[in-house]
Amino acid sequence: MSKYADRYFEVNPWNVIENGFNPEYSEVSESVFSLGNEHMGLRGYFDEGYSGKSLQGSYVNGVYERIITEKSGYKGIPDTLEFLINSADWVYTRISCKGETLDLAVSKISDFTRVLNMKTGELKRSFMWHVDGETVISLTFSRFLSMKYTEIGASKLEWEFIRGKSELNVSAGLDFTRKHMNAGEDGVNFWTGISEAGTHFCYSEAETKSTKQKLYASILFSKEGEAQVTEPLKPCVNFTFNENGSFYRLVCISKTKNTDVFEMLSKHTYESLFAQNCEWWQNQWENSDIVIEGNIDDQQGIRYCVFQMHQIVHSGKESVAIGAKGLTGEAYNGNTFWDTETYCLPFYLFSNPGAVNSILRFRLETLPQAMERAKQLDCEGAFYPIATISGTECCTLWQHANTQLQPSTAVAYGIWHYARVTGDENYLKTQGVKMLVEICRMLATRGGYDQATGNYGYYGVMGPDEFQLMVNHNMYTNYMAKKTFEFTVETVKKLNDSQLAQLNLKKGELEGWQEKAEKMYVKFDEDTLLYEQHAGYFSLPHVDVNSIPVEDFPLYANWSYDRIYRNDMIKQPDVLMFMCLYPSDFTYEQIAANYDYYEPRCIHESSLSPSVHSILASRLGRDDKAYEFFKFASRMDLDNYNRNTREGLHMPSIAGSWMNIVYGFAGLRSDEDILSLSPRLPETWENLSFRLLHRGVSLDVFISRSEIFLRASGDNEIRVKIYGNVIIPDEKGVRVPYGCLEGYKRGL
Amino acid sequence: MSKYADRYFEVNPWNVIENGFNPEYSEVSESVFSLGNEHMGLRGYFDEGYSGKSLQGSYVNGVYERIITEKSGYKGIPDTLEFLINSADWVYTRISCKGETLDLAVSKISDFTRVLNMKTGELKRSFMWHVDGETVISLTFSRFLSMKYTEIGASKLEWEFIRGKSELNVSAGLDFTRKHMNAGEDGVNFWTGISEAGTHFCYSEAETKSTKQKLYASILFSKEGEAQVTEPLKPCVNFTFNENGSFYRLVCISKTKNTDVFEMLSKHTYESLFAQNCEWWQNQWENSDIVIEGNIDDQQGIRYCVFQMHQIVHSGKESVAIGAKGLTGEAYNGNTFWDTETYCLPFYLFSNPGAVNSILRFRLETLPQAMERAKQLDCEGAFYPIATISGTECCTLWQHANTQLQPSTAVAYGIWHYARVTGDENYLKTQGVKMLVEICRMLATRGGYDQATGNYGYYGVMGPDEFQLMVNHNMYTNYMAKKTFEFTVETVKKLNDSQLAQLNLKKGELEGWQEKAEKMYVKFDEDTLLYEQHAGYFSLPHVDVNSIPVEDFPLYANWSYDRIYRNDMIKQPDVLMFMCLYPSDFTYEQIAANYDYYEPRCIHESSLSPSVHSILASRLGRDDKAYEFFKFASRMDLDNYNRNTREGLHMPSIAGSWMNIVYGFAGLRSDEDILSLSPRLPETWENLSFRLLHRGVSLDVFISRSEIFLRASGDNEIRVKIYGNVIIPDEKGVRVPYGCLEGYKRGL
Repeated sequence: MSKYADRYFEVNPWNVIENGFNPEYSEVSESVFSLGNEHMGLRGYFDEGYSGKSLQGSYVNGVYERIITEKSGYKGIPDTLEFLINSADWVYTRISCKGETLDLAVSKISDFTRVLNMKTGELKRSFMWHVDGETVISLTFSRFLSMKYTEIGASKLEWEFIRGKSELNVSAGLDFTRKHMNAGEDGVNFWTGISEAGTHFCYSEAETKSTKQKLYASILFSKEGEAQVTEPLKPCVNFTFNENGSFYRLVCISKTKNTDVFEMLSKHTYESLFAQNCEWWQNQWENSDIVIEGNIDDQQGIRYCVFQMHQIVHSGKESVAIGAKGLTGEAYNGNTFWDTETYCLPFYLFSNPGAVNSILRFRLETLPQAMERAKQLDCEGAFYPIATISGTECCTLWQHANTQLQPSTAVAYGIWHYARVTGDENYLKTQGVKMLVEICRMLATRGGYDQATGNYGYYGVMGPDEFQLMVNHNMYTNYMAKKTFEFTVETVKKLNDSQLAQLNLKKGELEGWQEKAEKMYVKFDEDTLLYEQHAGYFSLPHVDVNSIPVEDFPLYANWSYDRIYRNDMIKQPDVLMFMCLYPSDFTYEQIAANYDYYEPRCIHESSLSPSVHSILASRLGRDDKAYEFFKFASRMDLDNYNRNTREGLHMPSIAGSWMNIVYGFAGLRSDEDILSLSPRLPETWENLSFRLLHRGVSLDVFISRSEIFLRASGDNEIRVKIYGNVIIPDEKGVRVPYGCLEGYKRGL
Repeated sequence: MSKYADRYFEVNPWNVIENGFNPEYSEVSESVFSLGNEHMGLRGYFDEGYSGKSLQGSYVNGVYERIITEKSGYKGIPDTLEFLINSADWVYTRISCKGETLDLAVSKISDFTRVLNMKTGELKRSFMWHVDGETVISLTFSRFLSMKYTEIGASKLEWEFIRGKSELNVSAGLDFTRKHMNAGEDGVNFWTGISEAGTHFCYSEAETKSTKQKLYASILFSKEGEAQVTEPLKPCVNFTFNENGSFYRLVCISKTKNTDVFEMLSKHTYESLFAQNCEWWQNQWENSDIVIEGNIDDQQGIRYCVFQMHQIVHSGKESVAIGAKGLTGEAYNGNTFWDTETYCLPFYLFSNPGAVNSILRFRLETLPQAMERAKQLDCEGAFYPIATISGTECCTLWQHANTQLQPSTAVAYGIWHYARVTGDENYLKTQGVKMLVEICRMLATRGGYDQATGNYGYYGVMGPDEFQLMVNHNMYTNYMAKKTFEFTVETVKKLNDSQLAQLNLKKGELEGWQEKAEKMYVKFDEDTLLYEQHAGYFSLPHVDVNSIPVEDFPLYANWSYDRIYRNDMIKQPDVLMFMCLYPSDFTYEQIAANYDYYEPRCIHESSLSPSVHSILASRLGRDDKAYEFFKFASRMDLDNYNRNTREGLHMPSIAGSWMNIVYGFAGLRSDEDILSLSPRLPETWENLSFRLLHRGVSLDVFISRSEIFLRASGDNEIRVKIYGNVIIPDEKGVRVPYGCLEGYKRGL
């Protein structure tokens, strides 16, 4: 069960470095060297093509295709698959010399390096091409995505004849003709359209086949060549070079047509855009860098995570559904899951409140689909999907799609958490409440009353722990529903008449939610301090998870499907999950009791699992255990721990490692009126520092083994609890002694 | 919810009569007029073809095709679909006169009658064909399947020029080219092969495409014509007739090649085979007729059921899996379910013990597939399929296939019941025990122990009530498993050393089963006398089944799939089911308590449901309720109560109506050493009589409202309990007064 690193890249605090090209890691590298700017994602594949293993992915946020699967004959079982598809390969470049086409699977090369610079967001690759015994050419490819103008990307090629002068033929342009490999054995291309090319530009208007989404792709080259359009969606410009030199291209990939696009592009250069990007990243790092002294592995790891979090969403301009792989691969169909609000949101809440808007907007924009889904499930209100790209439920396994209520309660949690942290009452009363009310309507119609006791709760559900299927009174579901009812009722009561009128509340509806919240079955045993994960969980046959042979993993492949569901083994935290989301609701002793009971039963077959356990272990002062669970979190992809990084990066795990550090080792709690910190540093860390943006204040946190130094700058006053004691840091800073476990417990 | 008759056929004690042809009932008629002889099934479709709605089905026992569905990625989820397919249309006949081809969807006809004679097994159809104003021809089609030579069928055509003489052109032969309509929109034909035709014969050798099953079809005509083979699998002989006359054909459909087939056929004639059939049926009716005086509807209904039961299996020559539609249609893919042993077996046990062999053999022959299936499910031993045609699990819904243990416990029950009724210890010790042991191995590895109490039972199962999915300690499953363990241990203990050696019992295996039987969780509440259907059932939200609007049915189509599973509504008997299978285990009061609790919660969405409720209502002396549940059971297909008779006959329901009368109204119990009867006649019935064959004795039972008359003939003595009192009927007969409820209770 223990995971181990498959280290390939050089460890370096600010860069990801590949020295020498190993084809066995080609797809892993493509994932790790992915660039993104919220609007676009571009895997680190080779501009010049590559005949070896490769996923030449370039994606646009929200551009997907759809397949309708066979109807099941049962009502409410989803039949729609929507999946992120490859759009234009805009770094498309084919290079030949002396009749040989450059292909790193075949060509003779030396001095290969590839470097992702996290300070600038630029990816640079260079090598020597030994064309034959006489000719050696040095080639350097650079690329970045503009963070300011998110429709724009840039790439540059530099060459130098190191030995023997020759003619370099370069064909460069756009390619919409690649096949999407997740849609059948031989792949399917989902684009139709037309193209145009000129001496220094390429242009395509492309449309997806079934979803009819349009993309307008325009490239402006810095040099002139000969236009060539061989296929309707593959415009190129051909160049011939006899001297050392370079050229670059700027691309604009837009969902809307802009007749002035080339004029717009001509106002920029590679260098001018790059300079803006450096500035942008400098600002981001100032506000969100995490500095770890004492452990360079962890330092690089967490920087890489923060870098990726900014790449996936930052501008607040587009609504963003954070896919399981972001825009770095096609696994999980590019769908987003319920971890967006629970795992990803906190990072943005404290480092880029503007980006939060993108995430919250996605759920508001897709409220109609969630309401449609609720109808399919014979519920009122809104039932948010477990897997989606457009808002439509795309998980065709009914046993997940129909029984998991956590996407809906996560949306409510996200709204609550956003309002809690930002104090944005206006958003809550005008936008958030619309979703809250519809979620409550669903929760009030999906549940039922125990005919023996009158308790309210949910029957036939699957909680976050996906190893317990079709259970009753899953404690997470019940707990989150109770919280959702309570918060919604509280919010509605604060509305003014015109706000209230918009909700069309039925007579008695609010009272019904209140009653259900009161009667919600949340069973807590006063003697053992335990919450039972679901009705009957304590009576399940016991499995010693440590006795499961390593070759049985992954269990879904090696255990009969139903076998997974009939014992007390859990896949990921469930009771511990709501304890992690609402930490202030529970005492140290309660967390300890439930942690001690459930942790040994958990096999962590979800990448969401270790960080939650690590956060709680920190909270309990179990530092070794906390670090053991954290160990590979921040380097999951850099060191390919799960051996599937080739499919794309693990976005929720990336988000989870930020939470792991800030909520775990720094002990942040953000579920009360006031922020709390209760730091516990891992043994190898000398110190840890980071900044939290909070209600107009920049709160710098510096934690060493002797003291905690807090400094606040901004217009407002901020109060923070450290180990339970309220302090008010200012611009000069306040020092507090590093806490011991006892102090910690008091803080809790 | 109440069903009502769609009466089309004439009510008649010995015949099914259609007077005048109504195209709207064409497919219903095809089903109702189906013929079968265990080896073959032939729907009552028109020999001459029909361009209206029709399912021209002719089937051969055990001839099927296979589709492998997409792999799910999870282990143990079935991916094989096997389905009964159409084989040769051997009554293929095309008739034309004056350029018009006879087609009852188009042609002008009069005086149409179609009659199925249940005394002879012959189906006869006649009408006048008004070819034009001048020409009228009388046509009569007759057919039957030989019950003695089950590979042989016969059909005859008679014609008479009533008005205007003309030339009648007849093309007759074999047709393997029809498309199977369940395999895709346009249908697929699954046969390849070659054919031959001569002046008086047709011959085809055909093979199924993926399962590579061979069929050899040979037709011998009583007249000579001109051979014609237009397609590889469609040999014909063309005849021209100018005079009144007739001709017949004999067909042999065999799974093995017989070079003497035409010589063999030439030894028979339509009349000689028909005479043998009449004799055969006379003998069957003598032994198994049920005579009801006072209600001709019920009389015809139950005769039709008995007729169909003999048609589906009788000879004991082939192993037979009784499909949900027998050989009368393709719905449910021709698959057999767990009702074979629980619903169908009893009829044969008491009316044709030879046929029982066919049913039991099927499970023994498919033991290897059941053992393979157990492995897929991470169990030892044998896991019998919920839906199958070859022994392979063909239910691709994992939620049924992986969680329903009742096919396996039903096989064990069938073996126990067979041994109980027949006393055939030899079968039990040499064949039955092999299955019992493998079923116990599965039951011992599929279950688990409650970690809180140490009770044994089954987790993540679905009992017979398919509205409660993934439950723990389903009482039916636990009860049947306990019974299976106990009976197997008892049986194994009686074996001699060589019998024992064959079983390869592991050390402690027997003791393990005994321990599990003892620790089996079968919770009975001494106060309420109730068994809880599963752990937590009494705490489910309650649904008043009578408040569900009629337009919500069928629920699978109108309720969200998961909604069905989260309340206390049940689809069919579960606790009441095991009470029905082991009636002597329970007191009158226990049955009454559980009946009163579960019956109001049951919506009877399974055709297996009403008969069980009727049997128990009879047992409780609730005569009105008993008859209400029985009302349409015996006429389900004759009156198309479910409006889907066009798809084929409801075989388990047909078997259930026999049980309903014999186990219900006559109050038979066969789970003790001695047979018991406790008759309660429905109000409209004057009397009821039938014969039971039991251990070499023919026991004639005559029940009137004043007395019960029992007469036994045979070599052995038989003891029978009537209302609890043992009597020993002889050839002269014994009379016992008809019982009152109190007497009945004592009997129970």
